[in-house]
Amino acid sequence: MFHPLDPLSPTELRTVSQVVRAYHAPTPVRFKFIDLLETPKSTLLAYLRDKTPSVPAPPRKGYTYYHKQGSQTLRKAKINITTGKVEEDTEHPDIQGPADIDEIERLLDVCSKNVEVAKEVEKLKLPESATVINDPWLYGTDDANERRRLYQCYMYMVLNDDPEANHYSLPLPLAPIFDAHTLELLEIEKLPLGVGAELESETQPWDPAIPVEYSQTLLGKEYFRKDVKPLQVVQPEGPSFKIDGRHISWQKWSFHMGWTVREGPILNNVYYDGRSLFHRVSMSEMTVPYGDPRSPYHRKQAFDLGDSGFGITSNTLTLGCDCLGHIAYFDGIRTTGAGEPLVMKNVICMHEVDDGVGWKHTNIRNEQASMVRNRQLVIQCTATVMNYEYILAFILDQAANLHIDVKATGIVSTMPISKKTLSPWGTVVAPGVLAVNHQHLFSVRVDPALDGVRNTIVYDDIIPVRGEPDLDPFGCAFRVNTTPIKRPGGYDLDLTKSRTYRIINPDHINAVSGKPVGYKLHALPSQMLIMGPETFNYKRGLFSSKPIWVTSYKEGELWAAGEFTNQSREDTGMGVWAQRNENVENEDVVLWHTFGVTHVTRPEDFPVMPVEKMSISLKPTSFFELNPANDAPRSSQGQSQSTLVEHSSVAPDSCGKCSL
Amino acid sequence: MFHPLDPLSPTELRTVSQVVRAYHAPTPVRFKFIDLLETPKSTLLAYLRDKTPSVPAPPRKGYTYYHKQGSQTLRKAKINITTGKVEEDTEHPDIQGPADIDEIERLLDVCSKNVEVAKEVEKLKLPESATVINDPWLYGTDDANERRRLYQCYMYMVLNDDPEANHYSLPLPLAPIFDAHTLELLEIEKLPLGVGAELESETQPWDPAIPVEYSQTLLGKEYFRKDVKPLQVVQPEGPSFKIDGRHISWQKWSFHMGWTVREGPILNNVYYDGRSLFHRVSMSEMTVPYGDPRSPYHRKQAFDLGDSGFGITSNTLTLGCDCLGHIAYFDGIRTTGAGEPLVMKNVICMHEVDDGVGWKHTNIRNEQASMVRNRQLVIQCTATVMNYEYILAFILDQAANLHIDVKATGIVSTMPISKKTLSPWGTVVAPGVLAVNHQHLFSVRVDPALDGVRNTIVYDDIIPVRGEPDLDPFGCAFRVNTTPIKRPGGYDLDLTKSRTYRIINPDHINAVSGKPVGYKLHALPSQMLIMGPETFNYKRGLFSSKPIWVTSYKEGELWAAGEFTNQSREDTGMGVWAQRNENVENEDVVLWHTFGVTHVTRPEDFPVMPVEKMSISLKPTSFFELNPANDAPRSSQGQSQSTLVEHSSVAPDSCGKCSL
Repeated sequence: MFHPLDPLSPTELRTVSQVVRAYHAPTPVRFKFIDLLETPKSTLLAYLRDKTPSVPAPPRKGYTYYHKQGSQTLRKAKINITTGKVEEDTEHPDIQGPADIDEIERLLDVCSKNVEVAKEVEKLKLPESATVINDPWLYGTDDANERRRLYQCYMYMVLNDDPEANHYSLPLPLAPIFDAHTLELLEIEKLPLGVGAELESETQPWDPAIPVEYSQTLLGKEYFRKDVKPLQVVQPEGPSFKIDGRHISWQKWSFHMGWTVREGPILNNVYYDGRSLFHRVSMSEMTVPYGDPRSPYHRKQAFDLGDSGFGITSNTLTLGCDCLGHIAYFDGIRTTGAGEPLVMKNVICMHEVDDGVGWKHTNIRNEQASMVRNRQLVIQCTATVMNYEYILAFILDQAANLHIDVKATGIVSTMPISKKTLSPWGTVVAPGVLAVNHQHLFSVRVDPALDGVRNTIVYDDIIPVRGEPDLDPFGCAFRVNTTPIKRPGGYDLDLTKSRTYRIINPDHINAVSGKPVGYKLHALPSQMLIMGPETFNYKRGLFSSKPIWVTSYKEGELWAAGEFTNQSREDTGMGVWAQRNENVENEDVVLWHTFGVTHVTRPEDFPVMPVEKMSISLKPTSFFELNPANDAPRSSQGQSQSTLVEHSSVAPDSCGKCSL
Repeated sequence: MFHPLDPLSPTELRTVSQVVRAYHAPTPVRFKFIDLLETPKSTLLAYLRDKTPSVPAPPRKGYTYYHKQGSQTLRKAKINITTGKVEEDTEHPDIQGPADIDEIERLLDVCSKNVEVAKEVEKLKLPESATVINDPWLYGTDDANERRRLYQCYMYMVLNDDPEANHYSLPLPLAPIFDAHTLELLEIEKLPLGVGAELESETQPWDPAIPVEYSQTLLGKEYFRKDVKPLQVVQPEGPSFKIDGRHISWQKWSFHMGWTVREGPILNNVYYDGRSLFHRVSMSEMTVPYGDPRSPYHRKQAFDLGDSGFGITSNTLTLGCDCLGHIAYFDGIRTTGAGEPLVMKNVICMHEVDDGVGWKHTNIRNEQASMVRNRQLVIQCTATVMNYEYILAFILDQAANLHIDVKATGIVSTMPISKKTLSPWGTVVAPGVLAVNHQHLFSVRVDPALDGVRNTIVYDDIIPVRGEPDLDPFGCAFRVNTTPIKRPGGYDLDLTKSRTYRIINPDHINAVSGKPVGYKLHALPSQMLIMGPETFNYKRGLFSSKPIWVTSYKEGELWAAGEFTNQSREDTGMGVWAQRNENVENEDVVLWHTFGVTHVTRPEDFPVMPVEKMSISLKPTSFFELNPANDAPRSSQGQSQSTLVEHSSVAPDSCGKCSL
């Protein structure tokens, strides 16, 4: 028996592919992608609210992107798994679907075996030990008329076969372009090596450089610090969470742990102490535009969810490496081109973390300290998108806060540059290696359900009173001006007013504060997309131009830049949904937050970049009548079993001489 | 043998008081405060750099704020402890010194025994079980001509003697004002209970309310969560840090742990891998203005370092409560009115924390994951300033980052309000209890020494190219515009440009990037002081009006709002130092960062507020030639000893059926 929000099982996934194959027989089909098609919200909620037999379980459904053999046209089918029927099958001739692993592997192979590419590589006169490798990048967009499915391979060399060898330290100045359908080589684009865009007329021999390695073996034992002593998390009574299928409960929280190939982990039906908070919280999209205008770099703009997927690129996590303590893992599932299920082991980890003091007060009259530690539940995945890693975590705590953390790590995208040359577009991170400046702009989607689905997004501005001397003779007063959002659209932050967005249920008033129950978004104020409205960067990812978006809830509107982002020419997500003229006040409404970082690269980001952490939170505000963590048990040495480190830092005369 | 930056020892402190007493004999003196007078930077650096006997240890010095018996005039003396001489002794007739504990205790006593106050309290007809308590608050400023030393007592009642009883849940509508020198009652100010400032003509009987408690005993065992299982940090080989006196080394870091009564912990002489980073990093000041214009609330503006001190208000920390793992504690020291030393046990804790993934990369070609955990060293204190707590932490990590975290917790300042009344100035957090909206604005002082003391502060703006079609045909290019700061002053953040402040040593160029070595400030963008330039709030704390300040280094310029903040009329810190017309480029320069939060209160903040965390960082940028954590040992299960939680979340059909 599946929960309607469970990811497709291997059998279900196989059913989808069988149904689609049968539908088109005898023409063979190649599957790019099969994933859960979520039950419509109203059906789902009716079922979840009333689990008596009177409401039957909604049918399980999947959807797939696929191609019929011999056709370049992307197709999408929706399959009712319960009935074994194709419910919808559509052609998308002008659209490119996302990358798939079979395709990437085919391109890796085609590029590495291409004779013309090999000829050009030969001119580099690489050392004998060199292995040439390439990363097929989604092409990006610089021509609204382009309809071919294109990949551009960025090429590198490695000088040894150590499994941890840095694959991005020796970039080559060649970037061949392939048609992903015909597998034809269209062009061997050369990469500029100087300050400007000018190219060498002829590929020149490689100027030797020493790769910057991170490999344990290559660096040798002596290279590493010896003074980091082990630190372990011990939970003698086991974890505090309970797992029932994919229903997780932890202290007063409960949620269903969803997962899709596109988004990775998803929190569904999030409840606290029996009260509904959020219907669905997910990473919706992320775009990475690069700031180098020289071809082909101007086209580098990954949409790492829409182009590839945070689920499908998720690492298999290893006990003791990614988390400490008691760890529960959850598998993912993807599909082969033949429509066979492949289980992706341990792509989500869940564990508890101690985040220091949760709340504390010491009564000055009696020095009685009251202390609660901040225990958290972390649900985490790591997506590896070629060179780069994103660690996405949903974090729940005892004060009913939900935090979403993203840590950016991995290897920055590297390009070749002549030695002793500096670039205005990035930083030289190793001799001959340029890391271009870029942005990471994430969109988190929050589908709220605070005490019900009809919610309103408001923003609060903190405004000084000023000019009302009778009321405010000393000029210290400030007010909170609250503005409800009535229409969909993109909205701004304003630090000068401490502008804060808040989800409220206007029909539920907090009995203590007299204010509507709510959760406020602790946004991460960030520079939005630098590229202007005339650019493809902007047109393809409108969501990245504003920090806050509000839309009405509509079935299937899950991904901020729209369903198809690969080689897209326009944003079919926010570009459409935020333009509708409709009421979103006290309605089924969705809040989206764009945040990120403009990454000016540093040598310190190479070979592997230390995590750059971005964090946003949803915190209750008048949702509860008091501190939700008031009933969290006190911290005590009996539980914590900490160890005193003895030392004599205080001057010797302090002992025995002072009054105390 | 003392390090010049060691806090005063009990003997030294006693020497200071003896020398001052002898200096004024036979007139007795009352000490408010005795603290280390730091060795001038040039002397200190000469000594630290050359520890051969050719450079003698600089003399140990202390300074004290004190009063001669019978005099209201604040005096300050500087004492050479080594020679036993008063080096300077000054009168400050127009200035109020900080609060001191003797004084507070005297006022507590005076207020609780005052007959007129008791008469007024009687009108409240409090229950028999009531104990009336009061918090003497520093008066604040609303009259430039005021020269008396004033305290205003905010009064509360408690209905039981449980040591954890909430002392701020039953505010009384009376706020008597006392002269702290004469101990005279000046006025029993009544507190407004409605929306506006109007007062009851006569004190009315108390309208019964039930206090909101956090006490374990009062709430009873059944109240608390039962499902939080213990989580312990085990370090089988002990901590990775070394303590030599107050010199701490941890992995590649080393620093001297300073501490003052005013500032709490201070990081001095911070080095990484033998290279100088910072001369002194400290919390410099913090101001808390309240946004309620009604008397007496308009005067509420604490300067919690200058008025009282983060050192002197620091909690004695308890093993297993404030930190997990192997904990080293450091004591503080303060003085009695008689000049006797009082050791404050365990006011700083130092321990290691595991902060999850430090860096990670998985090679997509062979699925080889390389993973380093983010071990941190945390130096932390908790200051209790009456009702409220601040947890200040300096955090070092393996990627050579220095983070400064502040967690705000404790009990919000509460005022009485009539039941069923709402206020525009705050939130009703319990029946009859108003928590007024306020700001917390912190100033962190960074005295940099990147490869030497001559540094420059620059800011980087990220600017789109735009309008250069030959260079940037697709409009994606952006540049980093760097502006060096040449003159002292207050500077702005600008999120639209991702403006980032960076400390550089312009004379040291990174061999890899070709850029000057630097550390960038990851600022916390915050609403600055809401109150306008005409207000006392602004005049007293100019530092809170701009996020960034740059000044030249001058001896003793440590505290952003100036030396004396209690009842101050103007900011003698930034208000003076930032106005000097002098060069700060490639000079001994100081960077100050103002950040904080505008706290719109919530019922969820009561009775004790869950921590609100603010975090800033200093991160290397072209200071190193590669990731400083490249040599951090890999994470492994052998070290981590994590435990797998078994469960069967995947649908049953997944076992054995799928391809993998």
